[in-house]
Amino acid sequence: MTDVGIVGLGLIGGSLGLDLKALGYQVWGVSRKAETCEMALAKGVVDRSSVNLDLLASAEIIFICTPIGLILPTLRDLIPHIRPGTIVTDVGSVKGAIVPSATALWPDFVGGHPMAGTAEQGINAAQKDLFKNAPYVITPLPHTSMTGVEKLSTIVAQLGSKLYRCSPEAHDRAVALISHLPVMISANLIRVCMVDEEVELAQNLASSGFKDTSRVGGGNPELGMMMAQYNRSALLQCLRDYQDNLEQLIQYIESDNWEQLASTLTFTQESRPLFIK
Amino acid sequence: MTDVGIVGLGLIGGSLGLDLKALGYQVWGVSRKAETCEMALAKGVVDRSSVNLDLLASAEIIFICTPIGLILPTLRDLIPHIRPGTIVTDVGSVKGAIVPSATALWPDFVGGHPMAGTAEQGINAAQKDLFKNAPYVITPLPHTSMTGVEKLSTIVAQLGSKLYRCSPEAHDRAVALISHLPVMISANLIRVCMVDEEVELAQNLASSGFKDTSRVGGGNPELGMMMAQYNRSALLQCLRDYQDNLEQLIQYIESDNWEQLASTLTFTQESRPLFIK
Repeated sequence: MTDVGIVGLGLIGGSLGLDLKALGYQVWGVSRKAETCEMALAKGVVDRSSVNLDLLASAEIIFICTPIGLILPTLRDLIPHIRPGTIVTDVGSVKGAIVPSATALWPDFVGGHPMAGTAEQGINAAQKDLFKNAPYVITPLPHTSMTGVEKLSTIVAQLGSKLYRCSPEAHDRAVALISHLPVMISANLIRVCMVDEEVELAQNLASSGFKDTSRVGGGNPELGMMMAQYNRSALLQCLRDYQDNLEQLIQYIESDNWEQLASTLTFTQESRPLFIK
Repeated sequence: MTDVGIVGLGLIGGSLGLDLKALGYQVWGVSRKAETCEMALAKGVVDRSSVNLDLLASAEIIFICTPIGLILPTLRDLIPHIRPGTIVTDVGSVKGAIVPSATALWPDFVGGHPMAGTAEQGINAAQKDLFKNAPYVITPLPHTSMTGVEKLSTIVAQLGSKLYRCSPEAHDRAVALISHLPVMISANLIRVCMVDEEVELAQNLASSGFKDTSRVGGGNPELGMMMAQYNRSALLQCLRDYQDNLEQLIQYIESDNWEQLASTLTFTQESRPLFIK
């Protein structure tokens, strides 16, 4: 049975440990904090834990589950401790900023992104079956080893996730569209209302439509910053496309082109169910 | 006790009838369909009903609860049947396109907008307490009779609604911000995703953030059309302001001005609760 390493024992790393142990894998976990290592052992998230990366010397596949900014530094620290052929993967929510650089450092790197989460963070939020029925995107490069892709795909299937395979660029574009762009347009809605002279009345009259449309724009600013910084190029392209399309929509209204506006709104009504499953 | 007339026995007119009868008013209802008149009587929505407006000859206050496009035509038809001094009000969701014209036709017109609703329509969806704790905006002009405003305000208070009073323009601007603008930016999000080359992957990866942000843009196109046509000017101004603000936000990202972006996202996070009560 494969020995699996996990670096970073937060919500994702911890939940991964719970599922992999239940599947019969030997799971070894590394955290920078001794306290987290102890908690991981106590919660049954890992079989062994340590603050030292050399714990993972004989792991066959290693999941880097740190925040995005620490994925490449962690991989650099990890390399002296592991043997050639070890598959290393990550769980970062952007891939273009990670995968080519990581693969240059370690040829057996395979980028991954499990699209699951909860409002809470940290090992105490770890739960079983977090990835079940959730999308899990694997983003190999043309020269990524098939062994690594297959090994990771097998685990993803065992987690019960829906596996998708695409380029890092396609991933980043799709994620910009459905996650990062919504945050920006939603935040901008709140901002426009706040600087309006009718802001007080608007606050009194706002109901469920405003509530839903503003939700992700009123979320954790650090998340929005991360998206903008690490997925900058795809997000900017989506924002520009958004502006162009909005300009067209404004022109339908300005020119009383009700036929075009009606067909656009009918199109969006009919299209939305394709995204909601 | 005041005798109240209702023209248009749909969700709003029907729910109003139920509450007003419970409050002890004599309620007389007019619908264009004999079938609806019968149903209104059977459901206890009205004390008397008719397809003829002359039923309302001696009403002291009359609520026009038709779709927006029929408010002015209905008022014109109503005038020959009622006596001077009768207060006439409406429940339309835009006010600038209604109130000045209606007041020119009938000096004792007072514009109103109860901001309550359900997903369903028609008299069968009518329910008690629909307006309880919901905003109810009254939009008098400078020369609107105080008697009418006071009479309507008393009824609004009895319905348990939260009463707001402002100009038709302020109402339309606030409603554009919190309701009509969200529909357009949400619809535009769906549209941008649908014309993208990564649309299929985007559909597979979309989750709760996309779901919430796209909800009102995937709604009934007739509602969006009504907003754009009857609140055209306020909506266009809001859309232009939205574009200007979005352009600024894009420029923060393009110029790596992370400090400004962070302060904007912190501002929107802190501001959203002011709209959610």
